[in-house]
Amino acid sequence: MLVDIGIAKAFVSKEEFESSYTKCKNALKQVKNKSGAGSEWLGWRDILKKPNDAQLQEIDSFSRSIRTKADIFIICGIGGSYLGAKAVIDALTPHFGCNGPEIIFAGHHMGGRYLKDVLKYIRLPKKDGSSKSVYLNVISKSGSTLETALSFRMIREALEEMYGDEASGRIICTTSKEGGVLNAQIEEKGYRKFIIPNDVGGRFSVLTPVGLIPIAVAGIDIKTLFYGAVSAFNAYEKDAALVLEHAAIRNALHEKGITIDVFSCFEPELTSFGGWIQQLMGESEGKNGKGIFPAIAAFSTDLHSLGQFIQQGKRSLMETFLAVEKPTSNLKVNELDEDYDKLNYLAGELFHEINTKARIGTTEAHKNGNVPIINLSIPSLSAESLGGLIYFFELLTAIFVYSLDINPFNQPGVEDYKKAMYRLLGKD
Amino acid sequence: MLVDIGIAKAFVSKEEFESSYTKCKNALKQVKNKSGAGSEWLGWRDILKKPNDAQLQEIDSFSRSIRTKADIFIICGIGGSYLGAKAVIDALTPHFGCNGPEIIFAGHHMGGRYLKDVLKYIRLPKKDGSSKSVYLNVISKSGSTLETALSFRMIREALEEMYGDEASGRIICTTSKEGGVLNAQIEEKGYRKFIIPNDVGGRFSVLTPVGLIPIAVAGIDIKTLFYGAVSAFNAYEKDAALVLEHAAIRNALHEKGITIDVFSCFEPELTSFGGWIQQLMGESEGKNGKGIFPAIAAFSTDLHSLGQFIQQGKRSLMETFLAVEKPTSNLKVNELDEDYDKLNYLAGELFHEINTKARIGTTEAHKNGNVPIINLSIPSLSAESLGGLIYFFELLTAIFVYSLDINPFNQPGVEDYKKAMYRLLGKD
Repeated sequence: MLVDIGIAKAFVSKEEFESSYTKCKNALKQVKNKSGAGSEWLGWRDILKKPNDAQLQEIDSFSRSIRTKADIFIICGIGGSYLGAKAVIDALTPHFGCNGPEIIFAGHHMGGRYLKDVLKYIRLPKKDGSSKSVYLNVISKSGSTLETALSFRMIREALEEMYGDEASGRIICTTSKEGGVLNAQIEEKGYRKFIIPNDVGGRFSVLTPVGLIPIAVAGIDIKTLFYGAVSAFNAYEKDAALVLEHAAIRNALHEKGITIDVFSCFEPELTSFGGWIQQLMGESEGKNGKGIFPAIAAFSTDLHSLGQFIQQGKRSLMETFLAVEKPTSNLKVNELDEDYDKLNYLAGELFHEINTKARIGTTEAHKNGNVPIINLSIPSLSAESLGGLIYFFELLTAIFVYSLDINPFNQPGVEDYKKAMYRLLGKD
Repeated sequence: MLVDIGIAKAFVSKEEFESSYTKCKNALKQVKNKSGAGSEWLGWRDILKKPNDAQLQEIDSFSRSIRTKADIFIICGIGGSYLGAKAVIDALTPHFGCNGPEIIFAGHHMGGRYLKDVLKYIRLPKKDGSSKSVYLNVISKSGSTLETALSFRMIREALEEMYGDEASGRIICTTSKEGGVLNAQIEEKGYRKFIIPNDVGGRFSVLTPVGLIPIAVAGIDIKTLFYGAVSAFNAYEKDAALVLEHAAIRNALHEKGITIDVFSCFEPELTSFGGWIQQLMGESEGKNGKGIFPAIAAFSTDLHSLGQFIQQGKRSLMETFLAVEKPTSNLKVNELDEDYDKLNYLAGELFHEINTKARIGTTEAHKNGNVPIINLSIPSLSAESLGGLIYFFELLTAIFVYSLDINPFNQPGVEDYKKAMYRLLGKD
């Protein structure tokens, strides 16, 4: 993968950048030596250092069998328990229709209408009149996250009504090794269990069973994905200059008072990847009154929405563009006999080429609008490239957040709304 | 609808608020007297002042007939040409499956893989082996917006291959009265045409044929939607205090250096409404180095993503919450014989009530985290309430942006990336 910080670098002095770069080099040492705050949460590196091939194989085989049996696969989780899977699935599966099971997300909010629609939909017979084969993967370390636990309670009851005793064979729990309310149910009901490592936090968990089971059920090659991350891990252990440069310029821009980082990609397939980045970075850095707010945009779509603001609005934002080098499709513009729409000058061009020129033009325009821009690119829209991209952002996050003197791995502020909510709900 | 600016007001002094309120009162006068910059674009008010019932009826009848004939309805447009329709359709139609045609969006980016998937999907026979009945609504004032025009070229050719001469009867153009490349094609091919008023800009066009046709095809009662906006219009013509208060506190917070406004709603159905607001406000206010960046969140989903940052990150943000008073569903939490998950204390509770307590708890927590919050609420998740909400935000935008001494109705910065892109594409 490539990182080009050229445009952003012009917004800080040489001394400012070097000072930030030094902070980031020290931060990288803290990551490698496990000497920083929250270092008990560095398991996302350990799993790449010593890949557990047996577990990868087990997840792959298990997920393949579900893939052949399920019409619908429900992923029940919130935050780090679904964003990584959604990012990879949306990037690599077809936009319309699919060969395998339909993937449905649940447990990620408490909207009653949505859940009611899910409960109705899974019970509706298929077009041929037979009933649907539904599998459910509930993902929660503690099992007690309210959004997920409430949805699980309701969907499980529906499955028990639909399948009787057979329902237990359709429920997969991804949870902590011991403790928590899910483990009690696993013992009672005999659900299949996969373990979330204790030393990996939710937002760093996509390459554990948390993400890997849903991704494999969606038909994506998880070994290639995982080893894409392993390759990136090995490469950055030797030389992390690319990550350090990105972290350093972000640190320097943070010092300069930049308050918003707009992540965008010109490939619509990667929009959900922005959602994963938003949690990963936002939840890691947004502490102690610090951090750059991670906003997401999908370009060129949102150039017709946020483009005006980015070009000419309040100057307190930066942008991070993510490009894909290899064309994501071989679709070319048709030639018309009659050039009604005056687009024949583009006939025969790959959509990917036109889109690339839109991206380059946007970079040029926003640069002229005084927006610091970081340009990232991955070789292709593939499991391997995404694996590498995942590790890049995980390492970037750890380094950048340490460079601000913040523990990247806790999330003390997330508890505040929960406390107030539970009090209002009358929980003991 | 209700507007509560109590929490936000504590972040500014009485004098600051009064000064902002005065600016907003003057801005309202500019709107009413058509005396401000860009006042030739105030047609979104005129259509509500004198509703064109004949046109509403025509759109309603026409869309009903498509609804009975189409398996797939493609909405081909970008920015203001699709965001309003998507906002209303996502709010009011079922999450899974639907009675009417499947709605597909296209023309809102240049992703080749997406478009290729669309072209493949519409050609795939139905489960019973018959071919799909596809209708296409292309929406563009000029007809030459590149994303939309390219997609239209490709999909039209597919429809002509699928249906031969009959294809022309399946294409509906929503465009300007005269000029532009679509009008030439309408004359040649005999496509059905609906007109975008000249005095209504894209982001204010949801209540014109731009939004109304797709919304009606999706099975939503457009008369109720439209007259919900008319009611709001009439109410605020008499007394706009609610809108003025909202605009004034936003003006005062802008003066204080607030750089981000996070719009969020605890109803997942309204997430796309945030996308409409994002364009409406962002494209109107983001000029001359001013404006508050409109970010979108979906709560409680994103409390597990952005919540940490909002609670404890850099203090330069405000929040706007949108609540729905009436329960969106009657779904209640089941009681279990064995309280495995320890949620029986919530048995019998409406999901809506639990979600409401999450919202109130979040308001309390974020207030304690020093976030200025504006609380909005609409009576119900209905066409009528949404119509009122649409006009509320349109008027709010006009008033707020005038209060910054900015023309709310142009978007000069959007052209910059287009110019660079067309140069790179070698267009004359």
